[in-house]
Amino acid sequence: MPTFANRLAEAVRAKGPLCVGLDPRVESLPKALRNRTDADAVRAFCWFVLERVAPFAGVVKPQSAFFELLGADGMEVQGDVLRRARELGYVTILDAKRGDIASTAEAYAHAAFGPHWDADSLTINPYLGRDAVEPFLSAAKKAERGTFVLVRTSNPGAGLFQNLVCDGKPLYRHVADEVVKWNASTIGTCGLGDVGAVVGATHPRELVELRAAMPDVWLLVPGYGTQGGTAADVKAAYRADGLGAIVNSSRGITFPFHPDDPDWESKIVGAAKKAQAELRG
Amino acid sequence: MPTFANRLAEAVRAKGPLCVGLDPRVESLPKALRNRTDADAVRAFCWFVLERVAPFAGVVKPQSAFFELLGADGMEVQGDVLRRARELGYVTILDAKRGDIASTAEAYAHAAFGPHWDADSLTINPYLGRDAVEPFLSAAKKAERGTFVLVRTSNPGAGLFQNLVCDGKPLYRHVADEVVKWNASTIGTCGLGDVGAVVGATHPRELVELRAAMPDVWLLVPGYGTQGGTAADVKAAYRADGLGAIVNSSRGITFPFHPDDPDWESKIVGAAKKAQAELRG
Repeated sequence: MPTFANRLAEAVRAKGPLCVGLDPRVESLPKALRNRTDADAVRAFCWFVLERVAPFAGVVKPQSAFFELLGADGMEVQGDVLRRARELGYVTILDAKRGDIASTAEAYAHAAFGPHWDADSLTINPYLGRDAVEPFLSAAKKAERGTFVLVRTSNPGAGLFQNLVCDGKPLYRHVADEVVKWNASTIGTCGLGDVGAVVGATHPRELVELRAAMPDVWLLVPGYGTQGGTAADVKAAYRADGLGAIVNSSRGITFPFHPDDPDWESKIVGAAKKAQAELRG
Repeated sequence: MPTFANRLAEAVRAKGPLCVGLDPRVESLPKALRNRTDADAVRAFCWFVLERVAPFAGVVKPQSAFFELLGADGMEVQGDVLRRARELGYVTILDAKRGDIASTAEAYAHAAFGPHWDADSLTINPYLGRDAVEPFLSAAKKAERGTFVLVRTSNPGAGLFQNLVCDGKPLYRHVADEVVKWNASTIGTCGLGDVGAVVGATHPRELVELRAAMPDVWLLVPGYGTQGGTAADVKAAYRADGLGAIVNSSRGITFPFHPDDPDWESKIVGAAKKAQAELRG
């Protein structure tokens, strides 16, 4: 069955849990690509990364903010990058952290899963509550796509609200418990469902807790690499069957070079290869 | 001083608290405008609304989801609509509910306040915590723009997380208390600051509570009109000086007609005029 969860399982079995994050900051791009418009340089860079890291990762995560920063032209490139990723066989996660109510949430979901971005999955923000999340879940179900709900984010200040203790458990745990319910009706033959959760590698104790609390939920784990999470930290995110987590690295894979470095291409390939090996342990 | 808060005060003093929400659903547009591409029809409709409701409202709120739904072309129209609104003297709120960490939040903020969207203010989602909100506040400060942080949203299911009681007070109140701190250093001569809060009209008791808890904070109040909030409900959002709140109506102003109705233009004008009168009481 080609559910989102099953396709993700297939990608992880084939290439390991590495997810390559595409955060194409123009100022970090190789100088060699800058003899064109910013949007064209971003497209060229992302396509290069997609082509070269394919042996090492089956999942990619374009970060929408860096495309939006270039206006309408950048959003067109976002579509081009997602299209190229699909052609190359990646499972795609559009990291846009959308969240809104009723028909507005539907509009975001149709943008994400419809012909414009046509992403396999979308990150979503739970703050607005059940009727803000449900339109994303319905649209994903209809189109055989997935979602990743923000549960415990990787940034240092994430705890301000996420760690508040409400009725005896932290807010992030309340969100996790809802994710388990939303995910329950979507479990594929791989034993995991289409409603995932974002849980940062930078909080190893909470990663252990949340793995146990959401046994059938795919975890998207940011914070590995540049942000400080180690391969040992993220081990806690995998289930006994080796599935259950994809581990994102963005800058660590795509920008391990200075913009002037003529050797940038081989450094990207080297970084992806090393990350794949580290994460496979 | 041309701070965001002062410009908002000027707009409200001149035209009252009505904010016209632009949620341009293609299927709701007048048939008369549909003899062109969806993006062109959305642009034409929004420009028409902007030109005709100007006597009745000084603030407009384009909803980004409905532009994104049309892909890169729609995002170009989003820029065109914000530009036209500025030319007509409106204070603009880009309703995109963005939220992300560190340099990603910066990218969203620069998209919102930079040359592409060039909005006067942006709605933001607080779930990711302090270091996710601060890049938006810094960018807004530098560009003399504003933000509206989601505190208590207007949707029926908003309470799932927002109403959880943590350390003796509901989550939305924790967020409100942070908004008060973030806003404190931005108070303009009008007595209000540049960091606003979204508080739905559909929760009248909480609107009273939050007005008192955030005395120097501009409230953006959705939920008036089609969503069920009345002019009497939103009275609680104003301060004694008559400032302090802008009240959004989207569908109630922009879609008070059937797509076949030849009389759609006058119905929009009539709805805006009526809402202005009701809200001025």
